[in-house]
Amino acid sequence: MATVRLVDESEATGAVAAIFADIKATKKLDSVPNFWRVLATNPTQLELVWTRLKSIMHPEAEGRTGRLDPLTREIIALAVSATNGCAYCINSHTAAVRKLGLDVEALGEVMAVVALFNGTNAIANGYQIEPDVFPPLD
Amino acid sequence: MATVRLVDESEATGAVAAIFADIKATKKLDSVPNFWRVLATNPTQLELVWTRLKSIMHPEAEGRTGRLDPLTREIIALAVSATNGCAYCINSHTAAVRKLGLDVEALGEVMAVVALFNGTNAIANGYQIEPDVFPPLD
Amino acid sequence: MATVRLVDESEATGAVAAIFADIKATKKLDSVPNFWRVLATNPTQLELVWTRLKSIMHPEAEGRTGRLDPLTREIIALAVSATNGCAYCINSHTAAVRKLGLDVEALGEVMAVVALFNGTNAIANGYQIEPDVFPPLD
Amino acid sequence: MATVRLVDESEATGAVAAIFADIKATKKLDSVPNFWRVLATNPTQLELVWTRLKSIMHPEAEGRTGRLDPLTREIIALAVSATNGCAYCINSHTAAVRKLGLDVEALGEVMAVVALFNGTNAIANGYQIEPDVFPPLD
Amino acid sequence: MATVRLVDESEATGAVAAIFADIKATKKLDSVPNFWRVLATNPTQLELVWTRLKSIMHPEAEGRTGRLDPLTREIIALAVSATNGCAYCINSHTAAVRKLGLDVEALGEVMAVVALFNGTNAIANGYQIEPDVFPPLD
Amino acid sequence: MATVRLVDESEATGAVAAIFADIKATKKLDSVPNFWRVLATNPTQLELVWTRLKSIMHPEAEGRTGRLDPLTREIIALAVSATNGCAYCINSHTAAVRKLGLDVEALGEVMAVVALFNGTNAIANGYQIEPDVFPPLD
Repeated sequence: MATVRLVDESEATGAVAAIFADIKATKKLDSVPNFWRVLATNPTQLELVWTRLKSIMHPEAEGRTGRLDPLTREIIALAVSATNGCAYCINSHTAAVRKLGLDVEALGEVMAVVALFNGTNAIANGYQIEPDVFPPLD
Repeated sequence: MATVRLVDESEATGAVAAIFADIKATKKLDSVPNFWRVLATNPTQLELVWTRLKSIMHPEAEGRTGRLDPLTREIIALAVSATNGCAYCINSHTAAVRKLGLDVEALGEVMAVVALFNGTNAIANGYQIEPDVFPPLD
Repeated sequence: MATVRLVDESEATGAVAAIFADIKATKKLDSVPNFWRVLATNPTQLELVWTRLKSIMHPEAEGRTGRLDPLTREIIALAVSATNGCAYCINSHTAAVRKLGLDVEALGEVMAVVALFNGTNAIANGYQIEPDVFPPLD
Repeated sequence: MATVRLVDESEATGAVAAIFADIKATKKLDSVPNFWRVLATNPTQLELVWTRLKSIMHPEAEGRTGRLDPLTREIIALAVSATNGCAYCINSHTAAVRKLGLDVEALGEVMAVVALFNGTNAIANGYQIEPDVFPPLD
Repeated sequence: MATVRLVDESEATGAVAAIFADIKATKKLDSVPNFWRVLATNPTQLELVWTRLKSIMHPEAEGRTGRLDPLTREIIALAVSATNGCAYCINSHTAAVRKLGLDVEALGEVMAVVALFNGTNAIANGYQIEPDVFPPLD
Repeated sequence: MATVRLVDESEATGAVAAIFADIKATKKLDSVPNFWRVLATNPTQLELVWTRLKSIMHPEAEGRTGRLDPLTREIIALAVSATNGCAYCINSHTAAVRKLGLDVEALGEVMAVVALFNGTNAIANGYQIEPDVFPPLD
């Protein structure tokens, strides 16, 4: 159970109601996910997080074209969330990649890559291996 | 400086020399990266890690077709490594995505998505937000 | 469900009973939190953790004055727990900051700062940005 | 060494130059920290991160009053960065808390609290201790 | 609830059925743990993970002798899982160390060491302490 | 470079000098490691950390018998440090396990186990796999 009371859509007014509406329209959802209902307990933060997430994850909604496609962005989100062990986020981004067409077998590949590098990260750190020499990316 | 002495290519023999050759051929490299030279201090582990990494990251080399393309796989590797703060791995996978055509602006998008979800993971965990309801992926 | 059986207050004797009493008195609680009931399965560890936590978090109880006030200490505890995603700890320290007067809006600011820097940590690590030059703190 | 080339102040133009100037003015700095010079390789991301950081960490610069004071905000930043082991961020936020008056002894208390709860987080997770019962914060 | 449907033992055929049988025989279990039933949604990954885990954790089953004894290996697994806060893994490896004879008091020592170094790691990182000088291990 | 100035052995007096002497005697070292020289900037914290570490890692020095042997304790310390990517700690605990007789091949096994479970932790979390049923440890 969340440590704060979730704001219900029916009680949202003003800026919060407008953001709730924008979230549902942009993400094509019927209801506002719990994440945003919790953030609404501090409207300033709700707006900051939504504005940034919308800009990064839905550039199309702002008339910009992202360099990464929507599925790649959601796969990164899932990889980060699995690495951090965030239950809410894993459920949410698994649903998102599924909606974007990733099936259970391809999800298995995502998890295989995530697991592989969580493992090799521990090896490289655990032996304090020095980076090979590469020039910085210009 | 690594906590163990790196195995030099010139001193590798037998199974280790064969794996070193396979690494260079599969990854089209002129020299063996430090990671593998450290793992070679325990040849059994060298083989286990290389076999698995080759299978997951280079399925084409084994005549299989992966469901994810090579750039997506390297982007996941970089996202995991940035989340874990693994210096060696970040350098290595940044070089890999660059080789596969990702420029500095697109790298900025990858980092933006990685940062965004490391942030929202902390929020979702920090409030103990319960997952929205989704059916399991069949 | 915890992986070990919790020690009940009614079955505690000797040193464990004394520590349980000290925990309730120092923290002004009516019952012993689960954390301490689990640690009581190894009385040596119970004493080590409680002694240290009391000294750091309740210096006033030992006649010392801490340099940080109690609310700041609990906010740090919550920030660390949110970053690590520790469910028990997040619940416990959210209750503590609430008791010390932090309302839901101010909690939103704490979470905003926690999320912001979990994000920027990933960016700074993800690009391997070198520290700016600062002299060490004397 | 960073994986991308840092943007020099002298080569910044347009929106990037304006943000560089705002960073120096808001943070009262003589030069632009490396973090922002790296982010400038993708101007959209530079703007998104700076806008959000300014709003959360410098609400006074926007005519708003934060609920947390500047030192508490920087202490949270340092606690998160120490937990994640982000070298750049630790250096940067240690310099910030020092500027705001935290001396080396008080820094010792911050680190003691950070260490204590990184330890107890592992215990609470390691035994899978169930949360004590608390009502959500209204 | 897992984000994918678990493969039931009764529906497993071919390579998956063979691996399920090998898992039960090698680990002396009556049923296949959930972890492997989830991995079976991608048979290639099931095989890769099982092959590697068997080689590292059950070398005896392959006629090799490991340098670490089985209890030490499971203690490492538990220490890593507690540090990462992985609920499934903590439950599983606690059951494993128990089966291998570790009682609740000794488990308390494992957790004490895990907690201690999660704490000191944060201190060493938090102050950016430079390593003492040691020669690499030959 | 550490963010604070290290306390030199030659300038230590009173309680700090006594703890420095105890560290060298207990750990059979010729000089005080950097970790303790940094902690000495806050003598109260130096004492708290040393007292606890001595009790957990050197119970023999206090006339108690630990349930884990010294090598197992140091292996856990190394596994935790590799998982957290703490450079100082990895160097320090690698030196410790080496002193206790672990050679480079056995170190390879430790790292293999650490890497394996950092990987499987990500899988178990990444699919949100529910724990198998085990009774709590009595």
